[in-house]
Amino acid sequence: MSEPLILITNDDGITSRGIAALREAAEDLGRVVVIAPETEKSAVGHSITLSDPIRIRELPKEDGVKGFAIGGTPADCVKLAVRALLDRTPDLILSGINHGANVGMSVMYSGTVSAATEGVILGIPSIAISLDSWTSNDFTYAGKIAKIFAQKVLQSGLESGVALNINVPALPEDEVKGIRLTRQGQSYYEETFEPRTDPRKRTYYWMDGFFVQTDNELDVDDVALADNYVSVTPLHFNLTHNKSLTNLASWKMFNNGNV
Amino acid sequence: MSEPLILITNDDGITSRGIAALREAAEDLGRVVVIAPETEKSAVGHSITLSDPIRIRELPKEDGVKGFAIGGTPADCVKLAVRALLDRTPDLILSGINHGANVGMSVMYSGTVSAATEGVILGIPSIAISLDSWTSNDFTYAGKIAKIFAQKVLQSGLESGVALNINVPALPEDEVKGIRLTRQGQSYYEETFEPRTDPRKRTYYWMDGFFVQTDNELDVDDVALADNYVSVTPLHFNLTHNKSLTNLASWKMFNNGNV
Repeated sequence: MSEPLILITNDDGITSRGIAALREAAEDLGRVVVIAPETEKSAVGHSITLSDPIRIRELPKEDGVKGFAIGGTPADCVKLAVRALLDRTPDLILSGINHGANVGMSVMYSGTVSAATEGVILGIPSIAISLDSWTSNDFTYAGKIAKIFAQKVLQSGLESGVALNINVPALPEDEVKGIRLTRQGQSYYEETFEPRTDPRKRTYYWMDGFFVQTDNELDVDDVALADNYVSVTPLHFNLTHNKSLTNLASWKMFNNGNV
Repeated sequence: MSEPLILITNDDGITSRGIAALREAAEDLGRVVVIAPETEKSAVGHSITLSDPIRIRELPKEDGVKGFAIGGTPADCVKLAVRALLDRTPDLILSGINHGANVGMSVMYSGTVSAATEGVILGIPSIAISLDSWTSNDFTYAGKIAKIFAQKVLQSGLESGVALNINVPALPEDEVKGIRLTRQGQSYYEETFEPRTDPRKRTYYWMDGFFVQTDNELDVDDVALADNYVSVTPLHFNLTHNKSLTNLASWKMFNNGNV
């Protein structure tokens, strides 16, 4: 096999420490290109930029690695990389290393995960990696985990339509208990809105919130993380709730007779 | 039961014709409040506003219906409605009527669907409704379908964690063949990026694209729509790919022994 092409992106922005950790993790595994948002794009979900032009800024090479800063979202970065900037389709997409876990319902809002989603839509094996801390800049162990799974996915592939969502405890390696294969949990942020008044006497709100832990089974993402395990969740992007296809048929509103 | 409280939102913005159609569809079913983005927020996915303040503008009542324009995304509107603006949790959320279908992989990018997602995360039965046209302003039949399903969901409820994604052909009622219960398909937009040069000689890109129809089974959302059926898909928001939990165990990298 020729040298693998690895695309690195994130949602914390091109200058974040986490992206550098991922670049270091990937540099021995193939040719690396970094294409990431110019500025922080957290909680943008699977947003894409249709109504505005998208700016691209090519960066000076760093350790021989090409980089582009994009005036758009993580999903924009992946689309633009694959459709316009790269000379061929990448063999692997790594998104992260995010500052803060992406577990439970937070997965729905995550720009980090959305880059992996976009990779999967484009048929490219993709991994999202997050560190369970908003402040720690020690990505040593998370980078090691990223490298192990990048290598394994390059070697073994992933089923078409599936991405890995990896969350790593913010602990030194010897305090991490192991790696668990997990399911997405139901834990969520309960939002609060704090009203304030601006100098022109108009009201505005800040969204804030606190994490509500509702899961307790050991093989659920946020439980594994709280137990000091690395959590690895296979995600797909077909949202159909199959059980409801049977349940709703009892409504007798549908003309599926000939299907 | 006391009068149901129905929250209406969308991603095309508070002034769009589709939201007025939904207001008309819902006004006989309960007390209606409209809380929608101030401006168009298409393709924002499940984006939320964490880094900026959120503005709220209360509108003059229209036909007795309260309205608020929000300087945020559809998901922001639902969160803010439930956590700060409404006097109680709504019994039903209706999102739409969107200009343009939300089928296949487009569901992942849809602001219309994300409002229903957000409703489901908050435990509220939710329906997203889209008209299969970017230009038609005839929401007559789509409004009728919205009313039928709103009534049914108020009466029978939906399983916890499930939303309905309804897509309606842009046809007069007598040309629609019926209603199909469907699965989310795999059809997608293949993006193109058109480079242009601004007056300062800097390059920027416009994202464009064309729809790639990859599905052919009759009970898939975009196929039903193309066959002139209303498509009704039950969606949930747990992205775990269960089959991979078995497949990936063969990698022997996981410490799930004691789970």
